[in-house]
Amino acid sequence: MPKRALADRSLQISLLSKRLHEILISDDFWRNIEFLTNERNIERLSEEDRIVVERLKKDVEKARKIPADFIERLSKAEALSYSAWEIAKKRSKFDIFLPHLKEIVELKREYCSYINLEGHIYNNLLDDYEEGMRYEKLKPAFEYLREKLSKLLDKLESEERINIKLSVRSQERLSHIILRYLGLKKDRFRIDLSEHPFTTRLSTFDVRITTRYLKENPLSSLFSTMHEAGHAIYELNLPKGKFRYTVISDAPSLGLHESQSRFWENIIGRSYSFWRFFYPILKKVEPRFEADIEDIYRYVNTIRRSLIRTEADEVSYNLHIVLRFEIETELIENRIEAKDLPEIWNEKMEEIIGIRPKSDREGILQDMHWSTGDFGYFPSYTIGNIYSAQQLYALRRDIEDMDSKVEHGDFNEIKDWLVRNIHRYGRMYTSEDIMKMCCGEGLNPQIFVRYLENKFLQRKFTI
Amino acid sequence: MPKRALADRSLQISLLSKRLHEILISDDFWRNIEFLTNERNIERLSEEDRIVVERLKKDVEKARKIPADFIERLSKAEALSYSAWEIAKKRSKFDIFLPHLKEIVELKREYCSYINLEGHIYNNLLDDYEEGMRYEKLKPAFEYLREKLSKLLDKLESEERINIKLSVRSQERLSHIILRYLGLKKDRFRIDLSEHPFTTRLSTFDVRITTRYLKENPLSSLFSTMHEAGHAIYELNLPKGKFRYTVISDAPSLGLHESQSRFWENIIGRSYSFWRFFYPILKKVEPRFEADIEDIYRYVNTIRRSLIRTEADEVSYNLHIVLRFEIETELIENRIEAKDLPEIWNEKMEEIIGIRPKSDREGILQDMHWSTGDFGYFPSYTIGNIYSAQQLYALRRDIEDMDSKVEHGDFNEIKDWLVRNIHRYGRMYTSEDIMKMCCGEGLNPQIFVRYLENKFLQRKFTI
Repeated sequence: MPKRALADRSLQISLLSKRLHEILISDDFWRNIEFLTNERNIERLSEEDRIVVERLKKDVEKARKIPADFIERLSKAEALSYSAWEIAKKRSKFDIFLPHLKEIVELKREYCSYINLEGHIYNNLLDDYEEGMRYEKLKPAFEYLREKLSKLLDKLESEERINIKLSVRSQERLSHIILRYLGLKKDRFRIDLSEHPFTTRLSTFDVRITTRYLKENPLSSLFSTMHEAGHAIYELNLPKGKFRYTVISDAPSLGLHESQSRFWENIIGRSYSFWRFFYPILKKVEPRFEADIEDIYRYVNTIRRSLIRTEADEVSYNLHIVLRFEIETELIENRIEAKDLPEIWNEKMEEIIGIRPKSDREGILQDMHWSTGDFGYFPSYTIGNIYSAQQLYALRRDIEDMDSKVEHGDFNEIKDWLVRNIHRYGRMYTSEDIMKMCCGEGLNPQIFVRYLENKFLQRKFTI
Repeated sequence: MPKRALADRSLQISLLSKRLHEILISDDFWRNIEFLTNERNIERLSEEDRIVVERLKKDVEKARKIPADFIERLSKAEALSYSAWEIAKKRSKFDIFLPHLKEIVELKREYCSYINLEGHIYNNLLDDYEEGMRYEKLKPAFEYLREKLSKLLDKLESEERINIKLSVRSQERLSHIILRYLGLKKDRFRIDLSEHPFTTRLSTFDVRITTRYLKENPLSSLFSTMHEAGHAIYELNLPKGKFRYTVISDAPSLGLHESQSRFWENIIGRSYSFWRFFYPILKKVEPRFEADIEDIYRYVNTIRRSLIRTEADEVSYNLHIVLRFEIETELIENRIEAKDLPEIWNEKMEEIIGIRPKSDREGILQDMHWSTGDFGYFPSYTIGNIYSAQQLYALRRDIEDMDSKVEHGDFNEIKDWLVRNIHRYGRMYTSEDIMKMCCGEGLNPQIFVRYLENKFLQRKFTI
């Protein structure tokens, strides 16, 4: 989208969202749902239709819990807070953001009082991104990761600096080649450029991704393309036909969505098998390319402590998330105060990741999530990483010769497995239930740690 | 847009249009308009606001004339008719289309009875595309063109075949270069590929065009880019600010819109001055290019009788329109019958353009307009051509050294003139009134003929 289009586009989207919300919470709509779900009628529906209607009922019940004036207050506060965060980050001054953050935390606590789920207060926030997931389950999982991954990071940290170079034109060609191998065809897909890569669905037959080509970070475009392709493949395979405009034609959680992007970016894209397939292609596109396959494999799997989440490797990335999880849960419990956050952040960084930010910009202000009220969002990144490793083991169980398939760039069976076991259900079941069906269990951080240890300690070069 | 997205996109658009129409014709909305336009209130509005409100009132009055059930009947008939036309054209069999065309003509006559403007029945149709324009004015103008342009065609027809070649990559570069010279910048504009070039506005800050690169027709992409750029410049300069979501932030007629595309495509793009500017650029992009500037000028101005409107030159194009105008006016008057159309078409082609189609596909079935009920649409193409020539003479009066500006690729003053005199008014006035203000008179086909005679007979190589 052209830059200047932003104001109008925002206006259009907010108008349509507002109208949608009005319909969703209207008494008229509610009466229709009650009619469909009364004892006599619900029995007459097919099983699939029943799932759709009950899913919708749950969404509407939740939406009706929140007073209209609260939504307005929250939106306004978030808009102001986001602007303040932008300025604060630019100037690296937490104080500019502080009063807004305080207000957002208060509003989010108020929000929790409306939703009022069982257990920990944080469950009310988590539920918006990871429906059905609970603090009580996440807390020990993240504690386990904190311990295991910190140790792993100590062992794996590398001082080596490998230099590789790829022209923007070669990067572009490689992105288009991998998209073709992943089966993303022009009749329902397109790729464009933007500053921050993202995926957007205009319909289940019109999914678009963006990427960006960075001279100084030559493989970043390939990985971001594979990442967004993972999201896109998911979106393109959500329930269609009579379900395409129902509430189930969507992912059940951000974590499961992220598992699909991380699967293609990390599990496949950073595997040795993948580079056995892709290295010759890269050499063909850029014949003067100097690094050999071992160099590239080490390059894309370099483990190094860093201050910035979005630049972190497969291991330390999750420590960044653990840190945010700890802070946001304590903040929402009112056990810590917003004003102390820069110090708390820096302390925790040193404790968990072993380095200390020198500025607010590199510390507490680096992510926008809290400024837009997205408390409870961060865990989904790590949930996605864990799920993707669990899916890998299930795939290795179900597909013979998976490594050799990847080595030949034959991703069809893998894709089919993901479609059949995950994508096609949409929101008919929760992420945890879908994972239980295809992987035999819900979130299991041990599998993820086992995957990392296999890969990085035992140097198992296969997937 | 990816191809498979079509069904969902159509559904979305029809849902939004339907909702918009419902609001537009609602009694509630009408009461608000009456309140704003009552004697006491209308006086309190600023002149601009008054124009907006009165413009809106006229639109709503017209929309309220048409019964809801009629709109439904017409939409259904048009959808079926369009499909039938597609098949009929593919098989070159008018009979497949005939029953649908008959029904559409009947429905359009019914439509005229609801609108019920003064004068000729055709005025009711014309008014949807060329508000304020009348059959009584168009008829003599088109008779004049028929006579003058037929003679001109006899004199100018050329047997010469010039061959030029440009790689798709060079075509693409030339398109991007000319867009830059025309001042279309990425912050509010983009260009994509599609089978049929078009312009679309998502907001007054987000206007997009498409083009296509044809190996066998190497300059077609350049002209289609300039054509769509003309539309885009218009859209980008329509009333903004507090007017951006009002009825006046639009063109007053298709003809005036088309005058802008034709202006850049033909008046500028096919002028000798333009090629003095652009030929060196072309040579730089494609150094092996063989034709010289004289060759290209003759190539882009070749006059030749052809069966297909969209492939016609600056002179004969309008004869194709005259033919359609004559047929559709008689059809809507019920003076001829749909079943006789293939024969009538072929006869008229021979009379007016001097060649006879050998099939329905090349004759009566070549355009989709009638299949979608667009009677009264065709004249706007020629109105656009006429207006663009009138604008040329006004520009030559107001801008010193216009030729030399074009020869240097300096289009700023020309663009500013068009923005100041045409674009910025949006729909505040009719096209005829806007033309009177900037060119001293409304539609004048003599100016257009004079422009063609100057250019083609006297070989005046300047604009």
